[in-house]
Parts: sequence; structure tokens; C-alpha cells
Amino acid sequence: MFNKRVKVKELLASEATGQEVIVMGWVRGFRNNQFIAVNDGSTNNNIQVVVELGMLDEETLKRITQSASIKATGTLIPSQGKGQKVEVKASAIEILGDCDPEKYPLQLKNRPSLEYLREIAHLRFRTNTFGAVFRVRHALAFAIHKFYNEKGFVYMHTPVVTASDAEGAGEMFRVTTLPFDNPPRNEDGTINFKEDFFGRSTNLTVSGQLEGELAAMAFSEIYTFGPTFRAENSNTARHLAEFWMIEPEMAFYDIEDNMNLAEEFIKYLIRYVMENNREDLEFLAQRLAEEEKQLPQDKRSEMGLIEKLEFVMNNSFERITYTEAIDILLNSPAYKKKKFQYEVKWGIDMQSEHERYLVEKHFKKPVIVTGYPKDIKSFYMRLNDDGKTVAAMDILAPGIGEIVGGSQREERLDKLTERMKEMNVPADEMWWYLDTRRFGSVPHAGFGLGFERMVLFVTGMTNIRDVIPFPRTPKNAEF
Amino acid sequence: MFNKRVKVKELLASEATGQEVIVMGWVRGFRNNQFIAVNDGSTNNNIQVVVELGMLDEETLKRITQSASIKATGTLIPSQGKGQKVEVKASAIEILGDCDPEKYPLQLKNRPSLEYLREIAHLRFRTNTFGAVFRVRHALAFAIHKFYNEKGFVYMHTPVVTASDAEGAGEMFRVTTLPFDNPPRNEDGTINFKEDFFGRSTNLTVSGQLEGELAAMAFSEIYTFGPTFRAENSNTARHLAEFWMIEPEMAFYDIEDNMNLAEEFIKYLIRYVMENNREDLEFLAQRLAEEEKQLPQDKRSEMGLIEKLEFVMNNSFERITYTEAIDILLNSPAYKKKKFQYEVKWGIDMQSEHERYLVEKHFKKPVIVTGYPKDIKSFYMRLNDDGKTVAAMDILAPGIGEIVGGSQREERLDKLTERMKEMNVPADEMWWYLDTRRFGSVPHAGFGLGFERMVLFVTGMTNIRDVIPFPRTPKNAEF
Repeated sequence: MFNKRVKVKELLASEATGQEVIVMGWVRGFRNNQFIAVNDGSTNNNIQVVVELGMLDEETLKRITQSASIKATGTLIPSQGKGQKVEVKASAIEILGDCDPEKYPLQLKNRPSLEYLREIAHLRFRTNTFGAVFRVRHALAFAIHKFYNEKGFVYMHTPVVTASDAEGAGEMFRVTTLPFDNPPRNEDGTINFKEDFFGRSTNLTVSGQLEGELAAMAFSEIYTFGPTFRAENSNTARHLAEFWMIEPEMAFYDIEDNMNLAEEFIKYLIRYVMENNREDLEFLAQRLAEEEKQLPQDKRSEMGLIEKLEFVMNNSFERITYTEAIDILLNSPAYKKKKFQYEVKWGIDMQSEHERYLVEKHFKKPVIVTGYPKDIKSFYMRLNDDGKTVAAMDILAPGIGEIVGGSQREERLDKLTERMKEMNVPADEMWWYLDTRRFGSVPHAGFGLGFERMVLFVTGMTNIRDVIPFPRTPKNAEF
Repeated sequence: MFNKRVKVKELLASEATGQEVIVMGWVRGFRNNQFIAVNDGSTNNNIQVVVELGMLDEETLKRITQSASIKATGTLIPSQGKGQKVEVKASAIEILGDCDPEKYPLQLKNRPSLEYLREIAHLRFRTNTFGAVFRVRHALAFAIHKFYNEKGFVYMHTPVVTASDAEGAGEMFRVTTLPFDNPPRNEDGTINFKEDFFGRSTNLTVSGQLEGELAAMAFSEIYTFGPTFRAENSNTARHLAEFWMIEPEMAFYDIEDNMNLAEEFIKYLIRYVMENNREDLEFLAQRLAEEEKQLPQDKRSEMGLIEKLEFVMNNSFERITYTEAIDILLNSPAYKKKKFQYEVKWGIDMQSEHERYLVEKHFKKPVIVTGYPKDIKSFYMRLNDDGKTVAAMDILAPGIGEIVGGSQREERLDKLTERMKEMNVPADEMWWYLDTRRFGSVPHAGFGLGFERMVLFVTGMTNIRDVIPFPRTPKNAEF
């Protein structure tokens, strides 16, 4: 029975000096053949285990290397050194697993780069940066469930393998058990997907929204939190082929209610992490500050990480229409000085440079843009009375760009089928979606929050590959 | 702004009679042109909305049909009828969405079968049975996160698309963007997966365990909760091609600690639902009792649903070794009367009939079986000192069979590589997994809980297709 150990986080907060304790973890440092810094991932802080000189033989001392795992038995005592209240005076040390420094690919003293750490993603959890990032990621995930549970939303696991394409256009991954060599064919030579596992052509979901809507038509308020997939060949710091998304869907909500919920939600998440992961956030804030020191002055953030989170938490998001956004851009010094690479005019799908201008230069806070032209948005968004815009909303965040995309849904059967026809969405395959508009349809709305983008925003990390355990990107599915 | 409505669950518990309220929901019944039963999915109970005679015209009265959606404004008053404390005296009724009874495929009065409801899974949430099942499913999911969060476990999203095969043998779904017509080929005619999206052959994960172990080697205690996939052509009431699994993985745990955690976990989940979803459980208990009335006496459960849950919550799970289990089977009246279809002897992979005998006839409670023959278990399970069994554990539950499978993991590099060689697991593709045994290896253990099987167990439903929103099974990926 191993499970009598006390976690480092608990030990460091303990007042019970004089007690016998067992610590297990990985060595983070070893000074003067006497002071072992032990970490078990419960916090970035280490517990100091003090070994009396002469207690261990030469052989054992040599095995206390970085990332070796040990079991230390001893007494919790007030610490002599600075930086910690308590330490463990060891009565016995057992090496659980060696770590040969000659072979170990993660030498902390060499300050490995984030790029290098991605290649050893199986070991990077052992660094302070990734320790903090993934504890914050955990806290955010928990806060998401807590938020919706408190509000009485029902968590729905919408299917990952699906025959439908929620966005009407996404590039998708095929899921199949058919062989590439000699796949079954129809008489006309096309592939016979009736022979495939699910009896039809299937792919990985790009969104759980459509299925979420079905459930909202019974439970009123539901949310999803699951993996979604895009087979886009975009190798950027903001895109993953596999990422997690939260998609709440609410009956009896209009676009206003939708915005209110999304803003409340984001603030709740930030507050939760500020209250529960302060230590990790402070570490990440310092990391970011140090990283930015290497940038020219004008590329640095105006606020530190903690300051930014407090600002977002305590201020209302700006709310503007798409038409207002275009006007702001057309009247901006940036536009007049021809600093935008892409065209600006009503009807465009705003580019990253436009969104960043609005958020980072003009408003300097999160912005919710509503009323987008219908032609650049999905078929299921509710047509506004002007006949040319839809009740869509995007939330743009500083440094991230779009973090939330949502809309009031088109609940009117005639309008919906008309849009589907215009956009070539096959109505017969979506009979079940249309049924919700046939039988007790109600006004409803929803949105999607990209989980990894939220983690980026909160941790101050800059590459999305650094906030998911094992990133999936073009040409990369290692681990 | 729609969001001023009060949820039915809240209204029914309200003491604030005299107040003006707005209710929105779907009509569950309409009596005497006067009493509308409205449901919004927050509970199976309806709020009664009372319409004064003459308040609505003929046309509107006709539109108040089952599953039409309405908005009712009125005053909360003490109820005249029995069965509810309060009701709403309507001052205005607005029909939000019609539901034509001639076309609506879900007529509650016809008592639709579970089989039929599977065909209209997009509407079945509107029945009492599925309302209760999915609220319980939600509560279980939340309780899972709550349990691990309270214990300081870190939630890890392990990858869904993977190049590895955790079980060493599972039938898997291929994930690809290559075309079936003229896929790229190598010179020797084989498919050139270097051209595929991820630059290699990839599939849907069968388990997050291996990646979970990597994270446990830094955070000590982690868990996953995500979708997993099996491309098995088994059309049974207990199998899904896509299902959700919870996989905790813990450093510094041996098989005993592992069993203790699993038992504590299952009891915590049951207790949570008993405390938070009592109404839904009572409904489901009654549903089950009614269903079982149609069975011959000897096929009925000995305990009612609530009674069963209380029993499991309040009693220790039986713990036996595989060897003891085989002995019990060999000495059983069932064996002597040749009632088992499959052979019983040391070394067999126990069949469902054997597991059910142990759990339902012999012990009449959940049973944890440990020490399985190594030849019927996975390569990563820790070899016991006898050299022929491994530190595996399965938890068998009444009516369900295997609900948890786990083990202490083989942390010794030499033993692990030996087993991999014996079982033809390619070591070079799993360099990252072996690294954890090279660099600071520690004793560790973990298990997997099949989420849908847990939902089955708690709800008393008997077909796994009825406890996941949109089941994925051979030849079926509708919705």
C-alpha cells in the first residue's frame, strides 16, 4: 500500500511539524549532497527533503539526479532556509526509479525552448511552465462544468462520429473501416459506403451544435464539452486539427440573452482560476513578462497577465454591430495609412488584422460583434428583419481573436429551409434537424467556445500546441 | 429578451404565490380546455397552467396540442388540484411553435416502445424516461469531475486521433483524408500514409491510458474522461462503437490502492445521484418495476433500483482472486448441473455467464477480481511474483458485468519490454511510453470505468443505446 504519502502541496501548507510523513515524487534539484527538492506535480513548489551528511552511501547519492523518483520518509520540521515554511528531515530515502542524466532528454538547466519541449511532449509536464498550464487547464475545465451545473444545464455528449456536417463546408476527416485496397464499389464504380462500418459515409464531427439543439428542445438548456475536428492544412499558432469545444444551446434565448450568458461565462471562468490557481497564474505571468522582454517595446502587451485577467473580469465587453465595426475600421488611422493588408468594406469576412485592430487598438477590451452579413455565415443563423444580416455574434479577445462564435438560431421552418436551399445544405439528410422546427419550435440560441483558445487567453501562452497535452496538427500525431 | 422565464423546477418549489411569472415550455397535456401541463425539461414534473374559460379563442385552443411550445404569463397561486403545491393562473398564452398531432411521431398516449424511440432519438428527450435518464447522466458526469477535482487529480484530454493502439489488439476505425479512388502508393504498391493528413496511418483511440500514464509521471494523479471507439461488429445491448470512458491513472498506487479508489469512486457517484436526483431515480425505479412485471418471476431483479443502489453504496465490494473465482465456479451447482455454456478451467477468459454467476448468484454484490492469468491480459499489466498472473483487477456489477477494468502497471523496463516482445507490441513506435520507465519510473496503477455502463447501472435501463444521446452501432450513425 503506497497510498500513505502526503502530497507536496498539502505538506507545504501543513502546520503539523513534528509529524512523521512520507513524500514521493521526482527530484527537481539536489544541493550539497544534502538538500533534495522534490516535486509531485500537485504544485510548482518543491518540498525540501534534508538528508544528514553520512546518512546515504556514495552509490545512493549518485542516483539522486534530476527526475529520478524517490520515496522519502522523515519528520516535518520548520524550515531553516528561506522560501518555505517547512521541510522534511529524512530518516530514510528510497530510490524508486533512476534517471540517467547522460540520457535524459529534459535537462532543466539548459532552459529548453517551447519548440523543443513539443518534441518531448511526454516529458514536458515535468517543467514548471507545463505544470502550471495543465493545472490551469484542469481548473478551467472544472469551472465550465460547475458553471453550467449550477445553472441547471444538462451536459450532452453529442456524437464524435457523424454523417452530418454542421458547418455546411468544413474540411473533414473520414472515419472508415473499409480497406484502401479493393474497397467495395457500386455498379457505377463509386465507393459503396453501405459496406462501411456505419452503413454510410461518416466523418469526425466539426461541432456538436445541431445535435445540441435537438436536446435543447426538451431540456431547455444544455451544453456540450467534447472534441471537435478540422482537417484544415493550417499550420498556425492558433489552429489544431483536434481541439475541445464547449457549446451551450438554450431554448427561449434571443441574441441578447446569448451574449449575456457568454460574457457571464467567460468572466466566471477567469474568476474561478484567479481564486483557485493564483500561484500558477503568477508563475505564468512572470514567464510571459520575461518572454516579452525579448520583444521590441511596441510588441509587448500593455498589461501583465494578471492585470489583463482582472481587467476582463471587471469590465463590460464592448458590444457593436458588424456595420459599426466596418465603420470604425474605415475611419481608422490604420486604414487611412493603408496598413491593412486585406480589403475593408461591408460584406467582408473580417481578417485577423481587422479583429485585432478593433480589440487591441480601438477598444482595448473584449468586443462582441453582432449582425453579420448572412452571406458569410452559416445556414442555421436567424435572419434579421433587414433580410441581409443574421443574428450572429462573435466574441473577439485581445491576443487571441475569435474566442466565441454563436448566434440565435433560425427557428422558423420556412426561413430555414429557404436558407438551406440557397446554401445547398441537403434537407433530406437533416430531417431530424428540421423536425425540431416542425414540432414545437421555439426561439433559441447558442455559442461555441474554443477551449484551447480560452486556455491560451488565461495562461498567456502564445502557441495553441502548448496548451493541449498532445497536439494534433498537419503531419503530426506523435504520442 | 426572453430570459425572464422561471424554470418549472424552480416554480414548483417556489413559495412566492401572488407573484407574476413567465413560464415557457412544451405542452405535455391539456384537459377540459382549461388545464395545460407545461414541461421545460428541468424536471419530469409539469407546472399546471390554468386558463380561464373564454380567455382563449377556439383557434388558439386547438393549437394547444402535445409538444406545442407556449409562453404563459400569469400569477403563481396555490394549487386547487392534488399533486402540486402551486400552479399558474394565466393572464396570457402565446403559442411559440405549433405541433400538428397528425404528423407528430411521438404520441405519448400510445406508450411508444424503447425500440421505436431509438428511431426518433431526436425527440425521445421529451419523454419522462429519457428526461430522467439524461438528467441522471448529467449528474453522474458532474459527480465524476467533482470527485477527482476534490482529490487534486488533473483532468487530461488525451488525444482522440492516435497512431498507437493501447490494447495491442482492438479493432479500430481509420481516420484519414486520403481518397479511396487512387490513393497515393509507395513503390511496392502499399498505401503511402506519409501523404495522409497526419503523415502516418491514424485511428480513433481505444483508450487514453498510455497517454494518461505519461501525465501521471508528472502530476501523480490524473484522470481522463473522453470518447473511445471500438470497431467491433457486436450488436448487443452492452456494446457501442463510440462510448465515453473515465480513466484515472495514479503514480505511487499499487493494486490495493487502485481497488480502494475504484470502490470509493463508484460509491461516491451513487451517493451523489441519490442525493441530487432522487425524483428521477424514483421515476426510473418505478419504470423498471413495471417493466419487470412482464417478466417471469425468476427473471426479475431481487431488489428494486433504489434498494440496489443503497445496497451497493453501503456494502463493501467482495474482493477475490481469479483463482478463487474459478474455484467457486467449478464448485457451483450451476457447473455441476452443466448449466454453463462455456468451459470453466484456470486460464479461461471468463464469459458473461460466469461473471453473472459470481455477482448475481454467488455473492449478490459487486465483486473485484484480481490476479488474472497474464496470457489473457494486456502487455502493460504488472507481472506478479508467481510469473503467471498479473496485477489486474476487474469490477463486476450485478446486471452489467464488467464495469471497471484496471491494473497496476508494469513499471520495470526490463519486464515491460520482455512482455512487449512476447506479445508483438512494436517497441520502437512506443519509445515515449518506454521513456517513462527509463526516466524516473514509479509504481503506478489505473483503471477505466465505462461511463455508459455506469449510467445503465444507476438508471436501471437495460440497453446501452438508451443511455447515450445518439448511439453509434454497426450500420447506425443517424442524427
